[in-house]
Amino acid sequence: MTRAFNFSAGPATLPESVLRQAQAEMLEWNGAGASIVEMSHRGPEFMAVAAQAEADLRTLMSIPDDYAVMFLAGGATTQQALLALNFAAPGQTCDYVVNGHWGKTAIKQVGHYVNPHVAASSEAGGFHDIPARSSWQLSPDAAFVHITANETIHGVEFRDTPDVGNVPLFADFSSSIASEPIDVSRYGLIYAGAQKNLGPVGVSVVIVRRDLLERAGQPRADIFNYRSHVARDSMLNTPPTWNWYLAGLMFQWMLAQGGVQEFARRNATKAALVYDAIDTSSGFYRNEVVPAVRSRMNIPFFLPDDTLTARFVSESKAAGLLALKGHKAVGGIRASLYNAMPVEGAQALVAFMRDFQQRNG
Amino acid sequence: MTRAFNFSAGPATLPESVLRQAQAEMLEWNGAGASIVEMSHRGPEFMAVAAQAEADLRTLMSIPDDYAVMFLAGGATTQQALLALNFAAPGQTCDYVVNGHWGKTAIKQVGHYVNPHVAASSEAGGFHDIPARSSWQLSPDAAFVHITANETIHGVEFRDTPDVGNVPLFADFSSSIASEPIDVSRYGLIYAGAQKNLGPVGVSVVIVRRDLLERAGQPRADIFNYRSHVARDSMLNTPPTWNWYLAGLMFQWMLAQGGVQEFARRNATKAALVYDAIDTSSGFYRNEVVPAVRSRMNIPFFLPDDTLTARFVSESKAAGLLALKGHKAVGGIRASLYNAMPVEGAQALVAFMRDFQQRNG
Repeated sequence: MTRAFNFSAGPATLPESVLRQAQAEMLEWNGAGASIVEMSHRGPEFMAVAAQAEADLRTLMSIPDDYAVMFLAGGATTQQALLALNFAAPGQTCDYVVNGHWGKTAIKQVGHYVNPHVAASSEAGGFHDIPARSSWQLSPDAAFVHITANETIHGVEFRDTPDVGNVPLFADFSSSIASEPIDVSRYGLIYAGAQKNLGPVGVSVVIVRRDLLERAGQPRADIFNYRSHVARDSMLNTPPTWNWYLAGLMFQWMLAQGGVQEFARRNATKAALVYDAIDTSSGFYRNEVVPAVRSRMNIPFFLPDDTLTARFVSESKAAGLLALKGHKAVGGIRASLYNAMPVEGAQALVAFMRDFQQRNG
Repeated sequence: MTRAFNFSAGPATLPESVLRQAQAEMLEWNGAGASIVEMSHRGPEFMAVAAQAEADLRTLMSIPDDYAVMFLAGGATTQQALLALNFAAPGQTCDYVVNGHWGKTAIKQVGHYVNPHVAASSEAGGFHDIPARSSWQLSPDAAFVHITANETIHGVEFRDTPDVGNVPLFADFSSSIASEPIDVSRYGLIYAGAQKNLGPVGVSVVIVRRDLLERAGQPRADIFNYRSHVARDSMLNTPPTWNWYLAGLMFQWMLAQGGVQEFARRNATKAALVYDAIDTSSGFYRNEVVPAVRSRMNIPFFLPDDTLTARFVSESKAAGLLALKGHKAVGGIRASLYNAMPVEGAQALVAFMRDFQQRNG
């Protein structure tokens, strides 16, 4: 057994203690005679696990009471479609600020339902920046303004919550949820696939201001209706129970480690280590993102040529640094540094980067 | 550690050997330096796990090559909505044969998209029977005919595949998939939440005749498009990787045990044991389903009064027989006897039933 440092962009690394608890409870949970993965979602055991997970996430993120929290199957892309169905009238304008691949994906889901309006885009510049707030062409009658809080592929992150006036701000926080304190009340809706900062694959978290649930939205199946999910505490149908349970273990671990303040500190430390290694490499390593919006969670960088990139990927893997190959949309290298990645992981990566440069620079 | 016999209707019991393997691999999968739950769905490790799971399910169920297989998030209810969106024109008639709660749920998902026509229903008789094929009022222009192959709540099961002519037959097999040999080619589409006969919660299986994917369907988000999921091998977005992996372990276990022929034998044996205990109880236990369509998978039964029912539930739990309380829609007791329930579990239940009757009859 040798657990490596795993820089996967998601599904992503989990704390060893969380995995050990899941392992210990795999055959029987808490003396109940069965594993949590075998239990009815409507039984008292899982109901307690589910309620505790929600309570812990509320504590962790300081979620106000006038926000509902859902734990849903289906990933962030499914939520992108549901946003339009639940909160916009048919054909209504919805504003999208596009700062990377996932903003484009979000728009792709809704064209049949609403009029997606690109209020701003940094695509012309290769998604190396976030369009200045002053340049956004917002629609006064938009159902919502959608942003990608952190762009997993391009490595661009909003470092402040933009003011969009009275139109609710909806944000894809898949790769930065609970990575630092945020003011949830500034958002109409926050959604995230859990398989990055929150740990387990197979469950998404949606945090929504309750008054927005009163919107008519548009014709949709009951299973696509957030109001129905909230009314049934995310148990409208069988939820991904084990994944929800694992998220709960992760929340407890995060609280025990010191909460989002502590993770903000660690995440800043890790990101600074890696960006410093890039910036002091005399151009051997190259990150093209405007420094003010560099992502703390996902750091894409490039080597001088493809041969070196391939060698970096294979040698880093051999050195116990996994999944550093960049996303195919941009190539190069990508290091994801989510909450569960210890500072030691970033240090090991930096040591490898410096050694690799010395041998190949 | 005392694992009990778990009669939960779903999420449901898993074989101990499957749980032990998942436990052993929880911290590291196959020397890869990380758990499967932490690995990218696009990495070679998970891609191999996913492909093997599909191949094994194809072997297990003898799925013909002209059928595609999807592993999707979202449960059977989500698929019920997607059937209409993918295979019917807006407002087109779709025929539903309703033999229980879940047939009604299926219709509830599609009213905004199509014209659901109840071709036959056994609701007036309390869902104790399946309407005779000769009574079905099928629509010649229907997009599909939908049946619930096994009704988890009411304990009613199709024991033969009905002939519906040239209109494709779509079947919810959530609680009986791979429980016995079936001729997949008789169906246009088979879908199932995996958390019953296939084991793990959090993933659904959809088996569809490929030519049907050419149908236009109706306007829908890309993430709701089966064609897109098939084109991307169910990796259009991040799939529920760990759940898919656990399904794969279950398929391997089922193949090693002798495949669906063996499970057909075991499932018939288990069901016969419990029905016999009911039928020889001189009316102390009562199952109201017409014998020819009694479910092998879910056996609801009733005691003389609510006090005895409550005592049965609590005493059976204390005796290591879990989750026997009936669904709230019908009350009483329900014993689910999926593939992973050993014959010994049914024997233990029957022994308890006889002893309980002796003490309380």
